[in-house]
Amino acid sequence: MNLLLLAPEEISDRSTARLLRSDRRAVHICQVLKLQPGDNLKVGVIGGNMGVARYEVASPDSLTFSLVLDQSPPPPLDLTLIVGLPRPKTMRRVIQSIAALGVKDLILLNTYKVEKSYWQSPWLQAETLHEQCLLGLEQAMDTAVPRIRQFKLFKPFVEDTLPEVLHHRSGWFAHPKAEHGIPSDAERLVLAIGPEGGFTPYEVGKLTEAGMQGFHLGPRILRVETVIPSLVGRLFL
Amino acid sequence: MNLLLLAPEEISDRSTARLLRSDRRAVHICQVLKLQPGDNLKVGVIGGNMGVARYEVASPDSLTFSLVLDQSPPPPLDLTLIVGLPRPKTMRRVIQSIAALGVKDLILLNTYKVEKSYWQSPWLQAETLHEQCLLGLEQAMDTAVPRIRQFKLFKPFVEDTLPEVLHHRSGWFAHPKAEHGIPSDAERLVLAIGPEGGFTPYEVGKLTEAGMQGFHLGPRILRVETVIPSLVGRLFL
Repeated sequence: MNLLLLAPEEISDRSTARLLRSDRRAVHICQVLKLQPGDNLKVGVIGGNMGVARYEVASPDSLTFSLVLDQSPPPPLDLTLIVGLPRPKTMRRVIQSIAALGVKDLILLNTYKVEKSYWQSPWLQAETLHEQCLLGLEQAMDTAVPRIRQFKLFKPFVEDTLPEVLHHRSGWFAHPKAEHGIPSDAERLVLAIGPEGGFTPYEVGKLTEAGMQGFHLGPRILRVETVIPSLVGRLFL
Repeated sequence: MNLLLLAPEEISDRSTARLLRSDRRAVHICQVLKLQPGDNLKVGVIGGNMGVARYEVASPDSLTFSLVLDQSPPPPLDLTLIVGLPRPKTMRRVIQSIAALGVKDLILLNTYKVEKSYWQSPWLQAETLHEQCLLGLEQAMDTAVPRIRQFKLFKPFVEDTLPEVLHHRSGWFAHPKAEHGIPSDAERLVLAIGPEGGFTPYEVGKLTEAGMQGFHLGPRILRVETVIPSLVGRLFL
């Protein structure tokens, strides 16, 4: 936790916040960061500014902070990321990592090679996804929560939603057999990454029909949790 | 497992390999890939060539393959990566991911902010590290096992070993306060990434004294398991 991330409703009079001692963030501040009254830490408001929180008062049941919120969060990536739904055991890490990397628009998509049971994962509940995003933002020091959408049907997504996603944007899907390398332009980008095993020829056809182009990542086949930071690093770092 | 990776001693007459049915790879071939005699799969020899294995014979206790090994593995990255020893629970993923990304020279380093207990991790045993490397290579389709060295003392490493590591190479360490951005040249590179919390001022001084330069990664603070693929993507993809 490099940033104390507060919900707007946790702030009173625009400059004071109080955390119960049982709150996860308060526990971290006391037990890991070992801060004392008088110490400062970085703070941010979900969806808003960042700045400095001064730890003012420690009472038996809470910690009180005074806030100066005068800094903008880092700029968002100009990217919509479409990902074949990852295995449940990697979901937590994938969500935290996309939030940390600055991805603000994520689409979790069903494809032929996504195991149907993955859609039952408790990690897909809105509240859980939101929590994982907050952990990523606290790590990276950012306040803007990614929008995450889930599409459980490939064809209706590609036919009805994708055209709108691609509007005035350049769309690319990762495909080992594509001839084109990684796109060089990092503006107004839509990137689609298949599940393990990739997109089927039918899916490649549908994505192409919708106006997307294939690109390959070189000779190595990387897991989705490695591909995402590699591509973001390649395009946006 | 996208590649059946064999040890040289598992190959007889340069073109035949037999796996016991209890072998992890044989289980994967039968139960996940669901291959049958007559099917082909990608194969590689540790430290050697890649090619095609034809699944020839299934006996009650083993599978036999005939091999054509006429392809080179993907080119290695021209990079020595120095990493502050990661938390044990991320070690497995970090090792698999560096192997998958094509890093061939990894140095695990103690620094002030590495918890001393991390050095007790069973993940640091040579055999375990080797196994995790093989999993990464099987995923990425590569055969060259990374060299992994461990240095438990920062000062002797920097004074006695680092000069040799940096010989005719360009050395950089990640540091949020550095003014320089990510190096643009991906040749003969040495990159050092600190542990959570980064390098101390003393460590920054020692690395600088040894001839390395600091670089920053932008406004976001990323975990080591996210930084590594991001940087490799930025520099080598």
